[in-house]
Amino acid sequence: MKIINLDHISANPLLPEVQSAMIEAIKMNYGNPSSQHKAGDKASEALERARESVARLINCKVPKEMVFTSGGTESVNHALKGLALANRDKGTHIVTSNIEHNAVIRSLRRLKMMDYQITSIPVDAYGRVNPDHVAKAIRDETIVVSIMHSNNEIGTIQPIKEIAQITKEKKVILHVDAVDSVGVVPIDVRELGVDALSFASNPFYGPTGVGGLYIRRGINIWPLLDGGVQENNKRAGAENLIGIIGMGVAAELDMGDMDSRLAHTRRLRERLLQELPNYIDEYYINGHPDNSLPNLVSVSIRYIEGESIVLMLDDKNIAVSTRSACASGSLRASHVLLSIGREFAEAQGTLVITFGVDNTEEDILRFLTVLKDVVKTLRDLSPLYSKAVQA
Amino acid sequence: MKIINLDHISANPLLPEVQSAMIEAIKMNYGNPSSQHKAGDKASEALERARESVARLINCKVPKEMVFTSGGTESVNHALKGLALANRDKGTHIVTSNIEHNAVIRSLRRLKMMDYQITSIPVDAYGRVNPDHVAKAIRDETIVVSIMHSNNEIGTIQPIKEIAQITKEKKVILHVDAVDSVGVVPIDVRELGVDALSFASNPFYGPTGVGGLYIRRGINIWPLLDGGVQENNKRAGAENLIGIIGMGVAAELDMGDMDSRLAHTRRLRERLLQELPNYIDEYYINGHPDNSLPNLVSVSIRYIEGESIVLMLDDKNIAVSTRSACASGSLRASHVLLSIGREFAEAQGTLVITFGVDNTEEDILRFLTVLKDVVKTLRDLSPLYSKAVQA
Repeated sequence: MKIINLDHISANPLLPEVQSAMIEAIKMNYGNPSSQHKAGDKASEALERARESVARLINCKVPKEMVFTSGGTESVNHALKGLALANRDKGTHIVTSNIEHNAVIRSLRRLKMMDYQITSIPVDAYGRVNPDHVAKAIRDETIVVSIMHSNNEIGTIQPIKEIAQITKEKKVILHVDAVDSVGVVPIDVRELGVDALSFASNPFYGPTGVGGLYIRRGINIWPLLDGGVQENNKRAGAENLIGIIGMGVAAELDMGDMDSRLAHTRRLRERLLQELPNYIDEYYINGHPDNSLPNLVSVSIRYIEGESIVLMLDDKNIAVSTRSACASGSLRASHVLLSIGREFAEAQGTLVITFGVDNTEEDILRFLTVLKDVVKTLRDLSPLYSKAVQA
Repeated sequence: MKIINLDHISANPLLPEVQSAMIEAIKMNYGNPSSQHKAGDKASEALERARESVARLINCKVPKEMVFTSGGTESVNHALKGLALANRDKGTHIVTSNIEHNAVIRSLRRLKMMDYQITSIPVDAYGRVNPDHVAKAIRDETIVVSIMHSNNEIGTIQPIKEIAQITKEKKVILHVDAVDSVGVVPIDVRELGVDALSFASNPFYGPTGVGGLYIRRGINIWPLLDGGVQENNKRAGAENLIGIIGMGVAAELDMGDMDSRLAHTRRLRERLLQELPNYIDEYYINGHPDNSLPNLVSVSIRYIEGESIVLMLDDKNIAVSTRSACASGSLRASHVLLSIGREFAEAQGTLVITFGVDNTEEDILRFLTVLKDVVKTLRDLSPLYSKAVQA
């Protein structure tokens, strides 16, 4: 039986063209882009071609500002630790939000162990950061503001442009974790006015283990990986050229298909939201109704547990998730859902449904039909539900 | 015309079996090993299978001690920065040698900027570290000793086992950069007695952009990449599963073929050393005559420049290198060659010749024939040479 993948945020399939390009790269047996002889030239050309494609995806005009990394997590760690350490003489205070991804939260926690001070600002019930709160949190010693572009659990998109105006005015560096946005919605680093932006290849159907870090020229940052002269001295180490070539092709395809992909996922999202009340009751939709990722629906279903729903759906060959795969295995309630005011029990009953190019409206209807049964079965077993029904 | 690759240290070709495994992995479209549903299970199984193969290659009995990284440079950065920061309460002094790879040198330089103290110990004319010098360099505040297993420019292998006895006795953590050794010569982390060991996949014909870091259980280390719970909480970020699968297969092949590969490269090395005086004169062989990598010959050819030799050989479709590709583009003389007592001019005239499974004795003879011409041409143009001849 076909598996219906409604967990694209955990893993997107590689597009056929990306697969072909990577297979060709494997067969090419490229040399080392840094070596002094011919074998290195072709490798170096392939590397720079991919860099140009990926730079164009985020409207970065100077490809040297685009550093290839081993993924979104490395980009975020590089940005936060590299900016904090390089600008320590200016101050040790960093501003962030309460609903960031673990890569940001834990990088900042690490910096706190190195005597940096972190201010984490709250979000509203839709998960939006108020730019005024950012402005108020900035002090003389503030060196970096790090706010995510979109949230990976509830999809809310932040007012980055407004925040960038504030950081620019206050001469503070703005880093944006755009891992779940780049390739999904149009991202223009120049229009947004950001100083550093982290992203990954898989959200636009490139391979995992490859990412990008945009660092605006003139920004003072330390490498996270010191050593050789690769990546314009910003990131040492022999390149994952096969993955980088895949990311480059994925970026090219994404630029061509962005409009149709947006239309497709929006249609699926609308259909799901429209149909949902016909299948289940007593649920909340999380995230901002308008400023949101088009490919994500977060729904908190009352009285039952998300983990159980995921397992029962998996049994019927439907993949969804309760939260970021990076945080799976943890029994704690999502910090994102608690931050937007969900109660612990509601947070535990949350599903994150993410669409991709391979989904159809039939997938949505099949999911809803199975979900209806699963919710009924679990609620019949739920002491919370029977208490609520009796009351 | 076939290119003769005598620069395997810059880039090894992928073995056909490694290519096939990676291509299959691309076509499999694996899920996310961390996700909660079936799609993640297969990915997680493939990841752990690769981990077991790679762990076995270095005789690591607890696969959880083996962390996948994005390559040797990340492993080294992770080890040095992670150990230094996690053990700061015990001291801030680190001991290393004068001939380490740039990944080690520059990671330590970075730590120096964070108020760590580095003692770098000299080597003898063969590039060997004297264990007694390590013992003498260790102070009460010493937390880490980092010595490479083999040198990437001259091939000398260090007395790691003896050094490990000293660090164990003095309760100091020993990190070994074994990037150019693992998969090339037998490495047994338990027999060596090391606490942390960095390595990469390409030296044994796996893909670039993938590496390993062995961290003995009980060793206190910070992650370099903070975020999700991957790699037993030691290295966050979605895995480069395609590359990791390639590394796993490369490790399996290497274990099976280690003896024949060793015999093959040793034979080529001996042939080259034996024939060399029949083709050129006035040269030195660098590195230790016995304790050395079997796949590397470093030769300093007097009166001429290595860069020119590389370019002229490249013109004849022969790839060699003057030094690590990571350091190419730099005009400075090799710190390794200066450390073993070569003069600046001799260091500039050095070739690093590295063999692989695809080389034949005919390759060696062809190389020597061309080299003879190249050396003659360059010496005829060399003012240093004409002065020496006249004298």
